[in-house]
Amino acid sequence: MTRPVFLLTDFGGRGSYAGQLRAVIARIAPASPIHDITHDVEPFAVEEGAWLLETVVAALPETAVVLAIVDPAVGAARKGIAVSADGRFFVGPDNGLLSSALPAAMRQTGHLSPPVRAHELTSPQYQRRPVSPTFHGRDIFAPAAAHLASGLDLALLGPPLAHLTAFPPFEGIPAARGELHGHIVHIDRFGNLITTLKALQLFPECALEVAGHPVSRRFHTFASAPAGTLFCHADSSGYVAIALNQGSAAAVTGARRGAPVIVRAR
Amino acid sequence: MTRPVFLLTDFGGRGSYAGQLRAVIARIAPASPIHDITHDVEPFAVEEGAWLLETVVAALPETAVVLAIVDPAVGAARKGIAVSADGRFFVGPDNGLLSSALPAAMRQTGHLSPPVRAHELTSPQYQRRPVSPTFHGRDIFAPAAAHLASGLDLALLGPPLAHLTAFPPFEGIPAARGELHGHIVHIDRFGNLITTLKALQLFPECALEVAGHPVSRRFHTFASAPAGTLFCHADSSGYVAIALNQGSAAAVTGARRGAPVIVRAR
Amino acid sequence: MTRPVFLLTDFGGRGSYAGQLRAVIARIAPASPIHDITHDVEPFAVEEGAWLLETVVAALPETAVVLAIVDPAVGAARKGIAVSADGRFFVGPDNGLLSSALPAAMRQTGHLSPPVRAHELTSPQYQRRPVSPTFHGRDIFAPAAAHLASGLDLALLGPPLAHLTAFPPFEGIPAARGELHGHIVHIDRFGNLITTLKALQLFPECALEVAGHPVSRRFHTFASAPAGTLFCHADSSGYVAIALNQGSAAAVTGARRGAPVIVRAR
Repeated sequence: MTRPVFLLTDFGGRGSYAGQLRAVIARIAPASPIHDITHDVEPFAVEEGAWLLETVVAALPETAVVLAIVDPAVGAARKGIAVSADGRFFVGPDNGLLSSALPAAMRQTGHLSPPVRAHELTSPQYQRRPVSPTFHGRDIFAPAAAHLASGLDLALLGPPLAHLTAFPPFEGIPAARGELHGHIVHIDRFGNLITTLKALQLFPECALEVAGHPVSRRFHTFASAPAGTLFCHADSSGYVAIALNQGSAAAVTGARRGAPVIVRAR
Repeated sequence: MTRPVFLLTDFGGRGSYAGQLRAVIARIAPASPIHDITHDVEPFAVEEGAWLLETVVAALPETAVVLAIVDPAVGAARKGIAVSADGRFFVGPDNGLLSSALPAAMRQTGHLSPPVRAHELTSPQYQRRPVSPTFHGRDIFAPAAAHLASGLDLALLGPPLAHLTAFPPFEGIPAARGELHGHIVHIDRFGNLITTLKALQLFPECALEVAGHPVSRRFHTFASAPAGTLFCHADSSGYVAIALNQGSAAAVTGARRGAPVIVRAR
Repeated sequence: MTRPVFLLTDFGGRGSYAGQLRAVIARIAPASPIHDITHDVEPFAVEEGAWLLETVVAALPETAVVLAIVDPAVGAARKGIAVSADGRFFVGPDNGLLSSALPAAMRQTGHLSPPVRAHELTSPQYQRRPVSPTFHGRDIFAPAAAHLASGLDLALLGPPLAHLTAFPPFEGIPAARGELHGHIVHIDRFGNLITTLKALQLFPECALEVAGHPVSRRFHTFASAPAGTLFCHADSSGYVAIALNQGSAAAVTGARRGAPVIVRAR
């Protein structure tokens, strides 16, 4: 069986880090297509990486192997893991990045139950030696992903794990006075501010505040929004997003990743 | 038959939009290679996207499927289309982006005639459901491209179209006093200013003005031009380009995409 | 035989130059996977490109064809070459970019001996015609790489060469007072300063100066270094790198590519 490998990292385009991953994978699994999800997660932004992975998971082939690396603690105590879920494999650091491999219930506790399985990446025969203390992506994660893509049994990579680090599902958190609290998790190239709030939590109403700016109008498409007006909409992955028609909501509001978003009762 | 899919978008590297396209295509057409043309068309710059596509078309495999998305009016009235021309398929919004699929004569009017064929993308069975109002690329265009890559009959995607939105061929426009008028359509990474003027319209003479700067010298290669002198040359796609040897013509002139270029009679 | 093609260029993401390479390769060698090493070598930075290629070579599949283009002298006298080494092929300009195709001894002189072979790219039947004077990448190098990937005999591309332009191996150069001299060859996305000094030349000691800043501490991982302290470590490719834990050494020191690095005796 030949599985495609999908890459998500914070390596950016500068340098050859992503290229080294591709070289390692192509050497071990020459018949596996290699596809990029993105390499432009903000450096060290594990939560943003986890959210971006979530936007892709539903669309992935059922045989996909995801290799995800946003790994500020490389070389420290965090584990390297491979997860099997819904027929797909997810490989990377155990820091929450792979949360979307897990169903919502498991994300609350991190405790795994069938059919989700995870193994720690400890078997030296499936690693590149010597292992660089600063680039487990190339020496541990990429070989594991490539071997899984070539049909290796997950259990051969190392001992099973009963618990993973996970982010709870991305959604607004109920707070005092009927408010919902969230934050900006990602800003796309067009300056759209994507929030941790589920669109279903909010619509049809839209009365929120992002980085101090009120947003009270909702439109379904960019083209239907008046120029210069901040509006909210359900983004293509089901999250509340704040946007400007053919303009940058990020530039107008000055909001950055992590900025608070407050939904007020009407 | 397995066709390769080539991607051209304005999604940039930030975010997972291009990754979502690749996931959708790999799921529907797992044997099709996926290649990037570019994802760095300036946001919403349909004309630049059309021009960049034109620089690639002649080199594409004869079986290529091009998926092109620069789509400021997503969710509004513009159609989604798939075009068959010269054995290749082109999929994207009907806003002129796919102009280079058409021979020059058809670009003047937008009216199609055999062997060029186009169909509107309306068949729900070849769409991803529900369709996001802001991401037709993932939910309508990518599935159509992937199905075409897998051998689907174009006619099954929706009803035939007799007319497409098209840019006229990129070339200088005759104006008063023997002038030719054009503009900058693209600025590359090296700061070269690429114009809408066909090199054949201008050379061997070179007497033009770009954003107020006169350019009167022509060289065939960068290495043969003196340092610090603006010069023009026929770029690798046959258009007039203004350049500096190992420097940035964009930085020296301050010219931006859209800036006027005037060729004066000598 | 179908070989994968790996791309390394300074084309960046803007524009369709890399896309044109992919189109040409996919047309000639449709069964060959195409993988990016990077397209973000700094414009015209041949030495940085050579170093980045070196970081990847050991990991490449043994059947890889590398197409590398950082070519400030395109159209001038420098040759186009294809090199066979260790079963792999390397295609690009003869300006030192492909140095890592050669063993260390040959890099000192540039004189080739078996089993390394090189041929000049002169055969018109394996070029795209007409050849653009500014884009040999598309018209000479990419077709050569694609034909090699499809199994063409190297010798058919043109006459053999006995000598190539090469950078000497990247390593610190002994200087007066027991010093070792080098420079910054690459700055990665995280602001890590990578030097031309081999880690083995320096460690376990670490007493160096980069762009006037003293660096005297060594750590094996980012996580083990105190915040705000410049430290050095052996990077994942075996070179001395200067870093900050979750910060940018480039921003703190203001050092740029080419800045001197001096190792002092202790």
